[in-house]
Amino acid sequence: MVNPASVEKATLQTIDTPCLIVDGDRMDRNIQRLNSHLATLGPKLRPHLKTAKSVEAARRVMMSDSGPATVSTLKEAEQFAAAGVRDLIYAVGIAPGKLGRVLALRAEGVELAVILDSVEQARLIADASRESNTRIPALIEIDCDGHRSGVLPDDAERLVEMGRALHEGGAELRGVLTHAGGSYSARGRAALEQCAEEERAGAVKAAETLRAAGLPCPVVSVGSTPTAHFSRDLTGVTEVRAGVFVFFDLVMAGIGACTVDDIALSVLTTVIGHQPDKGWILVDAGWMAMSRDRGTAKQDIDQGYGLVCDVHGKPYDDLIVADANQEHGVIALRPGSTGTLPDLPIGTRLRILPNHACATGAQHGSYQVVRDGSDVIEAEWPRFGGW
Amino acid sequence: MVNPASVEKATLQTIDTPCLIVDGDRMDRNIQRLNSHLATLGPKLRPHLKTAKSVEAARRVMMSDSGPATVSTLKEAEQFAAAGVRDLIYAVGIAPGKLGRVLALRAEGVELAVILDSVEQARLIADASRESNTRIPALIEIDCDGHRSGVLPDDAERLVEMGRALHEGGAELRGVLTHAGGSYSARGRAALEQCAEEERAGAVKAAETLRAAGLPCPVVSVGSTPTAHFSRDLTGVTEVRAGVFVFFDLVMAGIGACTVDDIALSVLTTVIGHQPDKGWILVDAGWMAMSRDRGTAKQDIDQGYGLVCDVHGKPYDDLIVADANQEHGVIALRPGSTGTLPDLPIGTRLRILPNHACATGAQHGSYQVVRDGSDVIEAEWPRFGGW
Repeated sequence: MVNPASVEKATLQTIDTPCLIVDGDRMDRNIQRLNSHLATLGPKLRPHLKTAKSVEAARRVMMSDSGPATVSTLKEAEQFAAAGVRDLIYAVGIAPGKLGRVLALRAEGVELAVILDSVEQARLIADASRESNTRIPALIEIDCDGHRSGVLPDDAERLVEMGRALHEGGAELRGVLTHAGGSYSARGRAALEQCAEEERAGAVKAAETLRAAGLPCPVVSVGSTPTAHFSRDLTGVTEVRAGVFVFFDLVMAGIGACTVDDIALSVLTTVIGHQPDKGWILVDAGWMAMSRDRGTAKQDIDQGYGLVCDVHGKPYDDLIVADANQEHGVIALRPGSTGTLPDLPIGTRLRILPNHACATGAQHGSYQVVRDGSDVIEAEWPRFGGW
Repeated sequence: MVNPASVEKATLQTIDTPCLIVDGDRMDRNIQRLNSHLATLGPKLRPHLKTAKSVEAARRVMMSDSGPATVSTLKEAEQFAAAGVRDLIYAVGIAPGKLGRVLALRAEGVELAVILDSVEQARLIADASRESNTRIPALIEIDCDGHRSGVLPDDAERLVEMGRALHEGGAELRGVLTHAGGSYSARGRAALEQCAEEERAGAVKAAETLRAAGLPCPVVSVGSTPTAHFSRDLTGVTEVRAGVFVFFDLVMAGIGACTVDDIALSVLTTVIGHQPDKGWILVDAGWMAMSRDRGTAKQDIDQGYGLVCDVHGKPYDDLIVADANQEHGVIALRPGSTGTLPDLPIGTRLRILPNHACATGAQHGSYQVVRDGSDVIEAEWPRFGGW
């Protein structure tokens, strides 16, 4: 009889490279940390699943297998709905051509809400609600920091016009939603706490404007990974959204939202060549495996295409993926470093911490899950892409 | 009876966005153009399939359904082998852990060759050849311009040592291979013609060194899309590799290897919002649809995350995707433009030309194929990723 424990599992030394590694212990700690913080402040977490795009990862981060959660594409909504998630916000301004798929999911019993920031969209949602004889729930997107989309919190006229177009037109005015994307360029506790407070204040102000006009506004939804962690007071907020906190990444470490040791995502790679005259070590993780994201280029420490660690996840001093082609990563010492290049023969396995977990994750079809400090691949979690 | 012509096909106005569009007419013209040029010079084309990663696209660019072709991953080798391709070079320096998959494909009758640039790798390939009782064909990678990997063309000692380790160790010394990646930063006909000549001269010199030492070197393989188009003389070269020429992109247009009107790849997107005070139009193609590639940032014309065209593919003056979040593209006039922002209501369909076809293609699961100037989706070609 075969002892199940004797079945050989793949390890970090045997699995094909490049591949995407998740440290499940670090991931669990990251989830626990945000939940503990929010428990002291009140609002529930509506995690953003755009980072993980994996049913297995989603089930570890959601309060329950049925949600709530946030998605960035209707593909995510459909995939997570198929896995039993029943409470979703599609947090990208709705396009008219997408309402059909929204209605199809709602008809299957998925409590899917949409967002908007124009009267034009409010009318389209109201029209679709009346035509389908269902009140599509909609949240008005608030622009709390000028970084992307949304209505200004003090633009009472547009807010109320949108609210009325929804509420009186046959849709359901569910509330307001904002995302402090500007916090990604903030630095230091004081600046991040201020971003969090501006995010809260903008959303609450818009909600009060709608309520003062006699309109419903039960939900006040805020969130980004930095502001979720640095919020001190969430009075008036009903839920917090965050995505990248599950894994963290070098951009978040550069902001101060985590340390490098918290980063749960890495790319496993193999040394394939050397150019000693140039101080280069070539590996089989290029931009196809790391993504083209250079999010740390604007931070104090530019990590190139990623920070190089040994196979167990311990960073080498000053060693980064300095450049990348499609399937080649060029490892070198950080410019100005006084260190020496480690001796890493052909075939050596390394792990690269990514700039941006969402972008690097998207380059891979699955996660290989390990425990902190272990070489054994405990599980493979499929992930999906597309729209 | 249903008339097949009456079955309604998806169009650029009805298909879900964002999605990846290929203009089949432009693609055919691009393939024809390089083949015509090479026909005047002699060497055959061994197209690089890392750009298309699609069996249907590959069949249009290869000389025959069985090849020859070049790949950047063993996943590509396996996928194209399953579709009948029989003559492949895996053009990334081989890692020891990958020889098992190489041997498995060879055992199925696929004429798959590997590349290397160290004596260490030569010995590993020779060892694996003897152990498997098969001569693994290998090409020595030559560094013709210092941009990445390879042996210098005048490093006769290392070249011959590698050649002997292969030839005398039981592997097959198939030849030499080089890639003028430095040509991507060259500008103007004279500079590009010089890159092409340096690429040719470096590979031929290395081949002559091997032959002078009594070693075989039947194949002299060169190529990059810019040098393939700007080569004037390919004496001594037996084959040319190129990949991105199939679609072209804004980086290639910036170099002068094509015009913007030659670009066969675009991302179809929908307008989802406006921020008139900032001069922004928001669309549903963010970096997830475009990739994070900012390859034109270092060129004379920075195209942001892509050049904005109307739904038929006609570019708007100075209109680019100036910034991108995961699922949001921020369209704005190019900095310094004296033009005016076009009036593009919510729901308007647009097409975005990408900086880098390989990177943008990799973000999508399939190509939607149209004819030049037509709205009708004629076919869907699946594409694959992974390793």
